[in-house]
This record gives sequence, C-alpha cells and structure tokens, in this order.
Amino acid sequence: MNVVQVIGIEDLPIIKKGDNIAELVCKATERQGIHIQDKDIFVITHVIVSRAEGRVVNLDEVAPSEFARNIAEHSDKDPALVEVVLRESKSIRRMGNGKLITETKHGFVCANSGVDKSNVPGERNVALLPQDSDRSAEGIRQVIRTLTGCEVAVVISDTHGRPLRKGEINVAIGVAGIEALRDRKGENDLFGYVLRVKQTAIADELASAAELVIGQANEGVPAAIIRGYNYPRSENAKATDLVRPKEEDLFL
Amino acid sequence: MNVVQVIGIEDLPIIKKGDNIAELVCKATERQGIHIQDKDIFVITHVIVSRAEGRVVNLDEVAPSEFARNIAEHSDKDPALVEVVLRESKSIRRMGNGKLITETKHGFVCANSGVDKSNVPGERNVALLPQDSDRSAEGIRQVIRTLTGCEVAVVISDTHGRPLRKGEINVAIGVAGIEALRDRKGENDLFGYVLRVKQTAIADELASAAELVIGQANEGVPAAIIRGYNYPRSENAKATDLVRPKEEDLFL
Repeated sequence: MNVVQVIGIEDLPIIKKGDNIAELVCKATERQGIHIQDKDIFVITHVIVSRAEGRVVNLDEVAPSEFARNIAEHSDKDPALVEVVLRESKSIRRMGNGKLITETKHGFVCANSGVDKSNVPGERNVALLPQDSDRSAEGIRQVIRTLTGCEVAVVISDTHGRPLRKGEINVAIGVAGIEALRDRKGENDLFGYVLRVKQTAIADELASAAELVIGQANEGVPAAIIRGYNYPRSENAKATDLVRPKEEDLFL
Repeated sequence: MNVVQVIGIEDLPIIKKGDNIAELVCKATERQGIHIQDKDIFVITHVIVSRAEGRVVNLDEVAPSEFARNIAEHSDKDPALVEVVLRESKSIRRMGNGKLITETKHGFVCANSGVDKSNVPGERNVALLPQDSDRSAEGIRQVIRTLTGCEVAVVISDTHGRPLRKGEINVAIGVAGIEALRDRKGENDLFGYVLRVKQTAIADELASAAELVIGQANEGVPAAIIRGYNYPRSENAKATDLVRPKEEDLFL
C-alpha cells in the first residue's frame, strides 16, 4: 500500500544553545519506541536549530539605526526588532501595511527575514534563521547517520506567508540528503501524455506535511519524521534551489 | 502517538463523465481493505472531478477570438487553448515569458485558469476546473456520509506554481466539512507567548501532504485519505477563504 506516515517527535527537552539536536532527536525517538530507518525524512522547525546554534538576540542589547527607527515609526514595530531584521537582510522587497518583506542573506524572501519571537524563551529575545540552514541540516544528518547507521534526509522548516493566497504554510529553508525539487520533466501521465509540470517543490510539501503534526501540538512538537516517501537523494542539496530568481518571476 | 497517515487510494477506474466519484472512492478503499472512519480527510485531484463533471473541452471544437490568436502568437501557445483559458478567466493578472497568469471565475490566481492537458484522455482534450469546486467537494462528502455513515472532510486539489519560490506544490481549490484556514490567534507558544501567526492554510498543507502519495505514482493515484489530523470542522467551508484579496497583497 502507498502510505506515507508523518510522526511527531515528542518529549524533546527545551533546546538551548550548544545542544546537539540530532542526538536529542535520536534519544527522543528511541523513548517513543520509533526505530529510525533508512530513507526517513526528519523535518525540524528552524527555531530549535537557531536556539541550539545560539542564533538568539536580546532586543535590549540592540542599538537601532536611524533608518530602523524611521521604519519602526511608520509600521508600529519595535525599532530594535527592525534593526535586527535589517541586519539579517540582503534587500527589502516590499514595505507597507506594517509589513516588511525582505530577502534574507540566504536568498529567501519572507516577512522580517525570518526573525521571530515565537518559541524563544526570554521576553525580549528573538530568534534569527540559522546562518546556513543547509549546513545545519547536513550536520544533523551526519550525526543521525553516525548514531544509527541510517541514510536519512533532513529538512529544516519555517512558516511563511505568501503572495496570492492567505494563511501561512510551512516551507523548507534547509535540506540535506534530499533534492529540494523533484524534476518531473519527461514523466508520462496516465494516458502517456508527457507532463508539462516540470518540477515539484517536494521539500516544501514535506515541510507542510510535517506541520500537520507539529502545528497540532501548539509548538510542543518541534520535529517530525516522514516515513514512506521515496525521495530523490542528493549529496549536495540546497534549499535555495527553491528560490525563484527575480528575472523568472512575473510578480517581481 | 501523534501520527498522521497519508494513504493513497489505488485502483480507481479511469474516471469518465457521469461517474460518481464518491461511490468509486468508497469501493476502491474497500477493495484496499481500508475502513473509512470519522474525521478521515479525502484529498482528490481536481482533474478526476472535472472529468466526472464533463468539464472537458476538445480544442478542435473551439473557435479562437482575435485576442486569443494575438496572445497565442506571442506566447507560442495553441490559439484554441488560449481561447479556453480566456473563457475561464475573470481577469489576466500577468502575461510574459510565454505564461498567462489569470484569475479564475472562482477567484483563484494561477497559470491558464487551471486549464490543463495532463491526465485527460483524448489528444486534443483539456480539462477545466470544476465550475464550483466547493460544491463538488460537498457533493462527494454527502455521498461518502450516506454510504459509510462517517463524517469526513473533502479537499479538492490542484497543482500551482507560485511567486517567489520555484517548483509547483499542491493547494486546495475546493473544501467541504473542514475550514480552509485554521485560526491560531490567541494560541500560546511553548513559553506562553501569544502566537503572531494568525492563520495556517491547513487545506493547502493537506493538499501538499497528499501529493506525497499522489505524485509518487505518476498520477495513477488520483486521491488520498489523510487520517489522524484533528481539523476544525465546518458546514459552510469555502476554498476561496484562501484567496488573498488584492488590497491586502503587497505583491499585487
């Protein structure tokens, strides 16, 4: 039977700077009675990766620039938060309605360069995205391989709003061991017609699927295993393959 | 344990005009040994709904307007296909690079108003979107309830490209029995901080999760059951809740 399972990883401790996420994830799955297998896909919300990597900033320790104060004044935001967002940004793509849509240094376009207060302990603390989320994913993959002997894939997820459609969805901002895009060029449909859909954003779809267990638990489940999905392996996967270049984007 | 299952529905016959999809889906799941349960979510690719509803057009029977011929000439498309796309459109949102991004009569913004050749038998035939995909979903839900006595939800999916990110993902274009958006306003995070994320597009995430089994099978699995996801029920769900109004969209 063609079944994909999305399993929430429960009982992870509160992740703090210096923690080894891969090790903690392996222990938590063991306590849950889950035996990690080849081709398991680990989807991990970026905020625990950021916390483990010490990518947390106390807004009280940030001196906002004049530009940050200007923006903050017109958008009802904390000037220190705006300053942190600007520091994490390569460019501002859109401003308005109190929103700041930026391009992160990685190349992702999202609100506030992914800087977020949710699930960060400390009233004035915010989490940044991991500096290199593919490298973070690869590090986790390597440790899981060492500890279990299994070839797994890792997807680091974030919650993004999007143009055209309301509501946020989970997408991939880091990948390891799995292609971010599945190339379908040349595949046939049921009637032998060659598919025009060329690429499926499988890493984004996996991140969204994982949110079904992660989001149910009020953020108490920060990671999931997806089992039974036959994905294209990769040894040099990059989540930035999911970034549509400006010149190919009719909306930019 | 917090587990969500995505189960591909196999061995559906080739769907043709007049077929009762709900009945065929119930029979196929029975043959597969799956017992339909309360709160099962059925994700069904729109093309089989369109075919069952006779929403198929033979391009040889379409007389393209002069405007359609103009567009076709500059985009290397079939003039009859462009004509069908225009007939299905409320407005054109973007044109260029051989692409036609339109607003469907329902209000969805996508390439070619969803008109597609994939998985439609007949060399010159294309499928349109269902006329009212929420009504189609509701019809399927009612029949499944009658046949099984179970309260289920139905999501009708389509494959969409998107601004900012490469690769296509599956999204919801019709819903029944389930809210398209999950309102998270006021929910707390792990540390008691009130979540700023206000709405999660759960119907889109479910459609993407279903694609993991549907897309693996080269379109031979046109429907899936998602089991174990505790969704907000609705008796008047609308997939157009997922459409971001132009005036709230920084990119339009």
